[in-house]
Amino acid sequence: MTTNNKAGIRNSVGSERYASTAYQAWLRYEKLPAELAEAYVQLCSKIYAAGNVAEDPVLRSAQEELLEGLQAMLGQQPELTDTAGDAALLAGTLDEPEIAGLIDKDEAAKVDEEGYLLHTVISGGSRKLVIAGTTSKGVLYGVFHFLRILQTRGRIDNLSVIENPANKLRMINHWDNMDGSIERGYAGESIFYRDHAFIEDLSRIRDYARLMAAVQLNAVVINNVNVHETETKLITKEFLPQVARVAEVFRAYGIRLYLSINFAAPIQAGGLETADPLDPQVRRWWQDRAKEIYEHVPDFGGFLVKADSEHRPGPFTYGRDHADGANMLAEALEPYGGIVIWRCFVYNCMQDWRDRSTDRAKAAYDHFRPLDGRFHERVILQIKNGPMDFQVREPVSPLFGGLTRTNQMLELQITQEYTGQQIHLCYLVPQWKEVVDFDTYAAGEGSTVARTVSGELFNRPLGGFAGVANIGNDENWTGHLLAQANFYGYGRLAWKPTLTSEEITDEWVRITFGHDPQVVETISRMLLESWSIYENYTAPLGVGWMVNPGHHYGPNVDGYEYSRWGTYHFADCHGIGVDRTVKTGTGYTAQYHEPHASRYESLEECPDELLLFFHHVPYTHVLHSGKTVIQHIYDTHFEGVEQAAELVERWRSLEGKIDAERYESVLERLLEQAEHAKEWRDVINTYFYRKSGIADQHGRKIY
Amino acid sequence: MTTNNKAGIRNSVGSERYASTAYQAWLRYEKLPAELAEAYVQLCSKIYAAGNVAEDPVLRSAQEELLEGLQAMLGQQPELTDTAGDAALLAGTLDEPEIAGLIDKDEAAKVDEEGYLLHTVISGGSRKLVIAGTTSKGVLYGVFHFLRILQTRGRIDNLSVIENPANKLRMINHWDNMDGSIERGYAGESIFYRDHAFIEDLSRIRDYARLMAAVQLNAVVINNVNVHETETKLITKEFLPQVARVAEVFRAYGIRLYLSINFAAPIQAGGLETADPLDPQVRRWWQDRAKEIYEHVPDFGGFLVKADSEHRPGPFTYGRDHADGANMLAEALEPYGGIVIWRCFVYNCMQDWRDRSTDRAKAAYDHFRPLDGRFHERVILQIKNGPMDFQVREPVSPLFGGLTRTNQMLELQITQEYTGQQIHLCYLVPQWKEVVDFDTYAAGEGSTVARTVSGELFNRPLGGFAGVANIGNDENWTGHLLAQANFYGYGRLAWKPTLTSEEITDEWVRITFGHDPQVVETISRMLLESWSIYENYTAPLGVGWMVNPGHHYGPNVDGYEYSRWGTYHFADCHGIGVDRTVKTGTGYTAQYHEPHASRYESLEECPDELLLFFHHVPYTHVLHSGKTVIQHIYDTHFEGVEQAAELVERWRSLEGKIDAERYESVLERLLEQAEHAKEWRDVINTYFYRKSGIADQHGRKIY
Repeated sequence: MTTNNKAGIRNSVGSERYASTAYQAWLRYEKLPAELAEAYVQLCSKIYAAGNVAEDPVLRSAQEELLEGLQAMLGQQPELTDTAGDAALLAGTLDEPEIAGLIDKDEAAKVDEEGYLLHTVISGGSRKLVIAGTTSKGVLYGVFHFLRILQTRGRIDNLSVIENPANKLRMINHWDNMDGSIERGYAGESIFYRDHAFIEDLSRIRDYARLMAAVQLNAVVINNVNVHETETKLITKEFLPQVARVAEVFRAYGIRLYLSINFAAPIQAGGLETADPLDPQVRRWWQDRAKEIYEHVPDFGGFLVKADSEHRPGPFTYGRDHADGANMLAEALEPYGGIVIWRCFVYNCMQDWRDRSTDRAKAAYDHFRPLDGRFHERVILQIKNGPMDFQVREPVSPLFGGLTRTNQMLELQITQEYTGQQIHLCYLVPQWKEVVDFDTYAAGEGSTVARTVSGELFNRPLGGFAGVANIGNDENWTGHLLAQANFYGYGRLAWKPTLTSEEITDEWVRITFGHDPQVVETISRMLLESWSIYENYTAPLGVGWMVNPGHHYGPNVDGYEYSRWGTYHFADCHGIGVDRTVKTGTGYTAQYHEPHASRYESLEECPDELLLFFHHVPYTHVLHSGKTVIQHIYDTHFEGVEQAAELVERWRSLEGKIDAERYESVLERLLEQAEHAKEWRDVINTYFYRKSGIADQHGRKIY
Repeated sequence: MTTNNKAGIRNSVGSERYASTAYQAWLRYEKLPAELAEAYVQLCSKIYAAGNVAEDPVLRSAQEELLEGLQAMLGQQPELTDTAGDAALLAGTLDEPEIAGLIDKDEAAKVDEEGYLLHTVISGGSRKLVIAGTTSKGVLYGVFHFLRILQTRGRIDNLSVIENPANKLRMINHWDNMDGSIERGYAGESIFYRDHAFIEDLSRIRDYARLMAAVQLNAVVINNVNVHETETKLITKEFLPQVARVAEVFRAYGIRLYLSINFAAPIQAGGLETADPLDPQVRRWWQDRAKEIYEHVPDFGGFLVKADSEHRPGPFTYGRDHADGANMLAEALEPYGGIVIWRCFVYNCMQDWRDRSTDRAKAAYDHFRPLDGRFHERVILQIKNGPMDFQVREPVSPLFGGLTRTNQMLELQITQEYTGQQIHLCYLVPQWKEVVDFDTYAAGEGSTVARTVSGELFNRPLGGFAGVANIGNDENWTGHLLAQANFYGYGRLAWKPTLTSEEITDEWVRITFGHDPQVVETISRMLLESWSIYENYTAPLGVGWMVNPGHHYGPNVDGYEYSRWGTYHFADCHGIGVDRTVKTGTGYTAQYHEPHASRYESLEECPDELLLFFHHVPYTHVLHSGKTVIQHIYDTHFEGVEQAAELVERWRSLEGKIDAERYESVLERLLEQAEHAKEWRDVINTYFYRKSGIADQHGRKIY
C-alpha cells in the first residue's frame, strides 16, 4: 500500500498545461460551498485504500482520482491511513478482507466483473463509506461515481448503490489518421498522431483516458476504419512499441486498446500475393501478427474492420463472404482473448442514380441477415443506428431485429457529421434514446435494441455500444463546448441505457456549469430541444441528405440526388420521397418485424417524421399534424430559424453566470448557427417553392 | 557567322528525352515523299544565314530551326554557305546587304517590327528564296512560316508572302503554382516548377518556347494570377536568378517573360505596413523591385495583375481605384520599357444568392468603364471574352465596346475549365472566332473586337491577346492530344485574327496527322463540330454553369444556384433564365451599343443560343427554331450524346492511319467523353423533366 503526496498526485493526474474549465470538461471539481463541504468532509477526510495500489495501475488511478477530486472539492487534502479501522472512507476490491468485512455477502455477489457498490455502513459505532468493486476497474468506476455524487451535490450519508454495466463493450471509435487529420472531425487535429507518427507527449491521451473512464467507457479504437497506407502498419513491429505506450496509458484507466485493420494488410504490409481469408499463408500471417501484437500489448482488445465497404478491400475479392473474413481474424486473436468487430456498413457506393430498383437502406440487412449464425463467438457485428448513415432522422436499422445468433453492437456517431459539425448545437442523446428504446419485436414485445446489443435478448456472449468520437486537440476537446455533452451522454448511455435524456442532461449541466437553477434549466432545455431545432431547418420528414457533397456541411437539396451514393429524394414538381413499400416500392419495409412492417408500409400509419423515408407523396399530402407536406416544410424551416435565434437569446440570458471564456466560445458558435440556419431555411424553402409552385400560406419571404 | 554541325543542332534543338509524335506536336517534321522533297530541295539545299548568328540568340534559333526542319523533311542535311551568291535560300534581317539587295525597297518597307517576308526572286539568273524580317524575330517567324509551308506541302517556287502581326502582344498566361500544381490545369503538372522551386532542367521549357514561337507567340506569364506565398517572392532576389535563366530560354525564341504579381507584395515580401499605391514608400518599393528585376532580366515584359478580384488584394483596401493601382506599377516599370496588364475579372464573389438586384455580368463594365482614359499609356486592361467566366456560351463582353481611351487585351481560356477539361473534345477556335469578329459598334459598324484589342480602332499604342495555357508536363503537353489544336489555333488567331476556323484547322490537322484526305476531312470535321456537340449536352441556351462546384467538371444543375458566386439560372416549375433586360431585369443589355442592346433586350430578336442569358422564359416559350425551350433541352441533349458516340466511330474509322500511340490515347478520351455525355444528358433532362413536369414529345427515356 503506497501513499502519494500532494505534489505527486498533481503531476500524475491531469496535464498542467491545460487548466481551463473547457479542458477539464466533466472532470471539473469545483470547490464546494463550505456548508456542503462540511457535510461531506466527515466521511471523506480519512481514507483507507485496500489492495496493492503500487502494483495495480487501475487501483492507483482510482486512488489518485479520489484524492485529487476530494481535495479540489472539499478544499482540504484527505488523509490516507494504513489502518482500515481509522478510516471513514474505504476503497478496494470486494475480496480485500477490510472491505469484505463491511459488506453483506449477498450484496457483494450482485456486483459484476466491472460493477461496483457504494455503501454507507455503520461499523464499530461509526459511519463508514465503502467504494468497492469485484475488480480494480470496478473500484475506479465506483470512485468516479462517488465523485459525481459530490459534483452533483448528492447526499452520501446513506448510500446504497450497486451498479453493473448493461453492456460488456462500451467503446469509442476514433476516425483518426496518422497524418494528424480526423475523418469527420470537427474539433481540431488528432490527439494521437501528427505527421505520420505518434505524438510523443502522452499527457493529453492520459487526460482523455480519465474522461473516458469517468463515464465508464472501457474500449478505444485509436485509428480510422478507413485504414490508409501508414496505418496499415500499426499492427507491425514498426509501430507496435508506440501502440504499446498508448495502450499502457489507457490500461491504467481500465480501457483496452483496439486497432482498425486493413483487410488487405497481408498484401500491403506482409508482401503476400493475396489476402484470401481461406488461404493458409494468409491465416498464418494474421496468426503471426496476433502473436506479435500481444507480445507488445498483452491486453490488446482486437480488430475493428471495415471491409468490402466504400472501396475498402475485403473477402469479396476472393469469392469469400463476411463470415469467412471475420472468422479468420477471430481465430487468430482467440488464443489471446481478442475479438473482431466487423462493421455492417456495406452497400453499393457506385450505384447509378438512374437505377430505381437498388435501395441502399436494404443493404446491411441483405448482406448480413443470411449470415446469421455463421460468425465466430468472438466476432461482433457493428451496426449503425439507422439503415443509411447517421442522418438527423432515420428509422432504426432493421438488422437489429434480423440477427438472433450473432453478437451485435450499436454504432452511434458522436461526431456531428450530418448534424451540424459542432458548429450547430445538436444534442444527440434524445435521438440515441429513441434508438436504444426501439422495440424490434425480434422475440416479441420488449425486444429493444438495448437488449439486443447487450446480448441479453438472445443470450449472446458479447455486445455493446460503439460511438464515433467527436474528440480532437481543440482546447475544449469537442470544438463546440456543449458538444462535450454528446460524449458524456454517450458514455452514460452505454453503461446504463435506461437512463433518461433528462437525467443525463441534468447531470452533465450541473457538473459542467454548476447548480444555479437558471443555468441548469436554460442549458438543459437548450440541449434537449436542439436536435428537434436542427431537424426543423434541415432535411424534412426523414428524407435525409440534402447536404453539400464531400464535407456534408450546409444545404444542397440536390447535392446527392444524381450521385453514386444511393441517397435520393426524387423530388419533382408533384411530390417527394422514397417509396420503400413492398406494394409499390423497394420492399424495404419487409425487413421489419410486425407491427413496424405494416406501420411503415401504410401511408396512413407511417409516422410523420419518417414519411418521406418510406413514401413518395404529393406536396399536398396531409400529415397527421393536419398540415400539407409543403406547408410543413415551410413552417418548420421558418420555425427552426426562429428557434436557432432564440438559442442565442437563451444563452445570452446566462451572461455573467458562466466564466467568460466558455460563455464567449459557445455564444460565437450559436451566432454562427443562427446565421447558417437562415441559409438552410432559404435554400430548402426556395428549392421547394420553385419546384412545387405552391406558395406559403402565410406569405412569408421565399426567394 | 557560325555554322553548327549536325550533332550540335540535335543537341540544342529539341529534347532527346521526348521523341514521340505526341510530344513533337506541330514541330513534327515528317519526312516528305521523295518527289515532293525533290521539288523543294533545289531551293533548300544551300543556305546563307545573314547577320551575326553567333551573337544573336534569336537568329541562332532561326538558323537551327531551319536546318533541323529541312533536314528532317528533306532527308538530307542542308549546306550552310558563307557566300551569299552561292546560296539558294537566304535568311536574315532586311538591313543585311545580301538580303536588301534581293528585295524591293517598297516591299521591305511593308514589313513591321515583328513581320517578315518570304519571297522567291530571280537573281543572277537563278531562283532564290529569301526569308527576311526587320528584326531577328521576324526572321525566326519567317523560318517557322516557311517550314509550315513544307509541312503542309505548299509550293515555294513563287512565294510572295508578307506577314505582319495584327496584335503587338500575343501572350500566354500560365496559371502555374510553384508547388507544381496548375490551377485549372488538365495536362499534368507544371513544366516550370516543382516543390516550390524552379525545375532545374530547362530543356522542356526550351521545347515549349519553340512551340510558342512556331505560332508566333511573343509573351509568356509564367505564374498564376492568384499569387500565393512563395510566388510573391518571384520578384525578389530569392528567385530572380532563376527567373533570369528561364527568361533566357524564352528570349532565344523571341518571347518576353512576364510575372503575375501580388498587389500586397510590399507588405508580404517587403515588410511594409501598407500596399497603398499612393504611399511614397510603396511606390519606391515597386521602383526598387523594377530596377532589380531589370538587372536580372533586361527585357522583362512586365506585370500581370489580378487585384480586388476573388479575395485577391488590391487598391480598394486603401480607398484607391484600379487606375491608381495600375498606374503606380506602370510608372515603376516605364523606365525599363515594361508594361502592366490589369485584369478586369472583378466582381462580387460574396454575393448573396437571394439578392436579385446584383448581376455579376455587369461587373467588369461597371468597374472599368468609368475609369476609361485614366490609365497610364503602359497599362493594358485584360478583358475576358465574356462577361461571366469562360462558359461554353456567353455573349461577348460589352466592355470591349465600352473603352475608347484605354489599351485593351482579349483574354481567352485555352485550358478547358468549363468545356470538358481536356477529357471532352471541345475545339474552341470557332468560339473565339465569334468573339474576335463580334462587332461592338463602338465606332460604328466594323468595330470588331479584333480591331478593338489590336488598338487599331481607337489608335491605342498597346493591345493584343492573352490565352490561359492548357499546357502541362503530360507527354503530349495538353492531356487530350487533340487539345493541342486549341493552343495552336490560339497562336495563329492572335497573329492573324482574320484566319478562318477552317484554315487553321486544316493547317493543324495536316501538320499533326498528315495529308491522307480521309484523315484530314474526318479530324477537321470532328474538331469544327466539337464545340457545338459539347454545348448540346451541357448547359442549354446560354444559361451557363450547371457544373459541379469547385472543380467544375460534370453536370450539377443547381451546383451554383445557391452559391456566393453570382451564377444563377433561376429555374422553377414554370421556367428558367436570367432577366437581364432594362425593362424588367438587371439592365445589363444597356451596356451594349445598338443594335445589340435592342436585339438582346427583345425576347423576339434575342438569338436562341443566348436566350436564357438575357431572358427568363417559360419552358413552353417557342424558340426561333420552332421548338419550345423544354423540347429544345431534351432534343439537344439526346442529340449531343449521339454525336459524342459518333465522334468515337469517326475516330475509329482512322485506325491504322494514325500511329497507335496517338490513336489509342485519343480513342480513350473520346470513349470517356461519350460515356460522360450520357451523364450530362440524363442529369439535365431529368432535372428539367422533374421540374417542369413536361414530357418529351418523343417519349425517350428520362429518369
